[in-house]
Amino acid sequence: MEGYGTPSSSDLERLRRVLGPEDVSTDRYDLLTNALDAYPGELHLPDVVVWPETAEEVSEVLRLANDRRIPVYVRGGGTGLAGACVPVYGGIVINTMKMNRVIEVRPLDLQVDVQPGVIYDQLNAHLAPHGLFFPPDPGSSRSCTIGGMIANNASGLRAVRYGVTRDYVLSLRLVTPTGKVLRVGANVFKSSVGYDLVRLLVGSEGTLGVITDATLKLRKLPKHRSTVAAYFDSIEGGVSAINAVRQEGLDPAAIEFLDRLHVELISKHSSVLLPTHECMLILEFHGYSRRGVEEEVRAATDILKGSGVVQIELPHSADEEQRIWEARKALYPSVMRASKAPITGDIIVPLSKLLDTVMKSYELGERYGVTVGVAGHLGDGNIHTNWLTDGRDTDSWMRAAKANAELVDYAISVGGAASAEHGIGIEKKDFMSTQHGESLDLMRKIKELFDPQGILNPGVLI
Amino acid sequence: MEGYGTPSSSDLERLRRVLGPEDVSTDRYDLLTNALDAYPGELHLPDVVVWPETAEEVSEVLRLANDRRIPVYVRGGGTGLAGACVPVYGGIVINTMKMNRVIEVRPLDLQVDVQPGVIYDQLNAHLAPHGLFFPPDPGSSRSCTIGGMIANNASGLRAVRYGVTRDYVLSLRLVTPTGKVLRVGANVFKSSVGYDLVRLLVGSEGTLGVITDATLKLRKLPKHRSTVAAYFDSIEGGVSAINAVRQEGLDPAAIEFLDRLHVELISKHSSVLLPTHECMLILEFHGYSRRGVEEEVRAATDILKGSGVVQIELPHSADEEQRIWEARKALYPSVMRASKAPITGDIIVPLSKLLDTVMKSYELGERYGVTVGVAGHLGDGNIHTNWLTDGRDTDSWMRAAKANAELVDYAISVGGAASAEHGIGIEKKDFMSTQHGESLDLMRKIKELFDPQGILNPGVLI
Repeated sequence: MEGYGTPSSSDLERLRRVLGPEDVSTDRYDLLTNALDAYPGELHLPDVVVWPETAEEVSEVLRLANDRRIPVYVRGGGTGLAGACVPVYGGIVINTMKMNRVIEVRPLDLQVDVQPGVIYDQLNAHLAPHGLFFPPDPGSSRSCTIGGMIANNASGLRAVRYGVTRDYVLSLRLVTPTGKVLRVGANVFKSSVGYDLVRLLVGSEGTLGVITDATLKLRKLPKHRSTVAAYFDSIEGGVSAINAVRQEGLDPAAIEFLDRLHVELISKHSSVLLPTHECMLILEFHGYSRRGVEEEVRAATDILKGSGVVQIELPHSADEEQRIWEARKALYPSVMRASKAPITGDIIVPLSKLLDTVMKSYELGERYGVTVGVAGHLGDGNIHTNWLTDGRDTDSWMRAAKANAELVDYAISVGGAASAEHGIGIEKKDFMSTQHGESLDLMRKIKELFDPQGILNPGVLI
Repeated sequence: MEGYGTPSSSDLERLRRVLGPEDVSTDRYDLLTNALDAYPGELHLPDVVVWPETAEEVSEVLRLANDRRIPVYVRGGGTGLAGACVPVYGGIVINTMKMNRVIEVRPLDLQVDVQPGVIYDQLNAHLAPHGLFFPPDPGSSRSCTIGGMIANNASGLRAVRYGVTRDYVLSLRLVTPTGKVLRVGANVFKSSVGYDLVRLLVGSEGTLGVITDATLKLRKLPKHRSTVAAYFDSIEGGVSAINAVRQEGLDPAAIEFLDRLHVELISKHSSVLLPTHECMLILEFHGYSRRGVEEEVRAATDILKGSGVVQIELPHSADEEQRIWEARKALYPSVMRASKAPITGDIIVPLSKLLDTVMKSYELGERYGVTVGVAGHLGDGNIHTNWLTDGRDTDSWMRAAKANAELVDYAISVGGAASAEHGIGIEKKDFMSTQHGESLDLMRKIKELFDPQGILNPGVLI
């Protein structure tokens, strides 16, 4: 995209008037800390960072940007793994962290109104006294924002049972690139009243509008939960156990997979020591009835035994359960300590293709000479293949990038998707055509319809 | 919309060449039987009916229609309640009933590929031997098609636990109004790869493209199920019990409500005799574990007792359970026998507004002097208020239409929606502006983007 404007001193003056001088910064420190997310891409500095507090302020910023054709990037917690908030063309970064109010919890409705800058874990802490929670639990739950989750259709460990962010957004207020403030959706659990604009916006990675508040559907916290950890001496055993659990009609709240490399890294770099086998599964069961949960755990245990499990852990206390989930949550920090610049894969395939795709990861690792580990929410088909390299732009990094690209192509070729939950951002734009074929053209036209000047998140997604 | 063409004799010739003469009809009987759905609106005859069997044939029909600007209406089982397939401007009706193959069941993937003309109950009969089912169970399950369900984002009795059609469509093939055949979506349970075109098409009521096949996510059939019927001497008691069940964190597969009028009509017009009280609830529990289901039934029974229930039925055999569900399924036939032209309401409100909205129905019935009954899937907020009139275009029908319109406005005013599952069609177009405000303009632009000549389902929805 060519011909973007740069904020002039009078533009900056106008922004300061609208937002207050403390919420507009051209300070180099602020530009730097608002330039990257968790994707290890190139550095692009914005010209200015703003921290609006209301939809009206966001509208004013977008009006100015649209008048002057200045690029605008929207940023939440900065935990994205695909660079979807990286200001590729400079311009204005809208940082949503000051729009961080939980506006209203309506326990009887099982709903909450939130601003986009609310942190996921903080929202759930706020909801817990009401016996409620917002399920999609991404790995970055301690610092990711609800706005970012909506923009990215985020999910995580509990998606296999509870679904993804898309399934929980009832309505939202957005500011269009021309500064119009619109409400879309209705605060009900289902509807058939025309085109689903809410779900068009969920996962649109900030390219269609800026979300300034949202109403989310909530769930009651489960009365009982129970965790099972299982270790296998072969990848085949672990993966076939996952399929067997699903075929049995069990409905676990989590079905996690970690291979030997990941288990070893966690044992080495975290406070949790795990037994070393070829792979590990962690299952969690939720339910209203204690006996119901116990019976599901028993059935799962029988299935695991039938799939050649070599060791099963059934924690008998909340502490022991927490230890297992701490191990799982130590996955990324451990990978980060083992590799200066890991490439974090995120693909999803149909369940019948799980084993082939996991094995394909190892085959590609061998072929390209890259250390590779497989983990992920395998219960719904979501595989995170992590490629450990010795630094960005090194030879091993280049080889890992090629291997990862080949794996993404493979996932698409078996009916899967280039990203399950991390998004396209700037990382995976090259796969959009393979993924969508001619229907990519419809997406481009929808983008133009919402954003005729192309000012919102240019260079990202589309 | 002005300026539509009419099929000429050479157009009909072209259609016969493409589809074969047996799949093109201008016979008056065929025109009549393809003119209406279950909405009691005015009669509009199409000029020609076609029964394509492939996406390529659909594409040829649309190319012709687009060249000549002839309106095209798409029709499945004709069970729609809002007139979404009524050929308001004449032209071509595409009847999908010859595209009725279950293409492939993939049990390990929990997926099925289907053509749009497959009947819902037939699909589930086909899936049952695999231990699988497609949950959204609409009332018209015996004759509605999967294509119609997708076009309408249909749901029904099991939505409170399992969600709606939208939640089960993974990918689909559509033919655009200009005749292009596109595949959208991916055959996986979640993704973050750009704009969600699948969910833009679900619920678009045939206005954006013609769906020629779809891949659906399936669920394993529950191992155990149990039904509870409960009778109350006040509406308040029944509705408060529903909210109490949800607040307890129970997760029934159905939470149905029938008021006295409906219970009496069912007893009178069906083979099932029900005890007469102010209202009746039917709950169904599904689960993997028998004991888990039993414990949920026990908890629900305790809650019902705390809400002033006067009679509880706990069926002890599959036959007894079936009897209760037969009663529920007899609802619409019974209403149809009691009234020559009932107006079937379909609104949805937040759960905290359930009681107010039910009571509002009675208040409006009294104010407008119309016999009114309330039923519905109240567990998710979906209320079907039925207005019994003595015939279409009679005075009582006019009054009922006004009362129903006022109730729809009320639902929207409390954060709800004009339709939960029946759709907008031609029936509720007047509410689109109240429902969506300025964002209706975005829908209009999306329609133009997909269908620049406005040939698909003109007069419907938008």
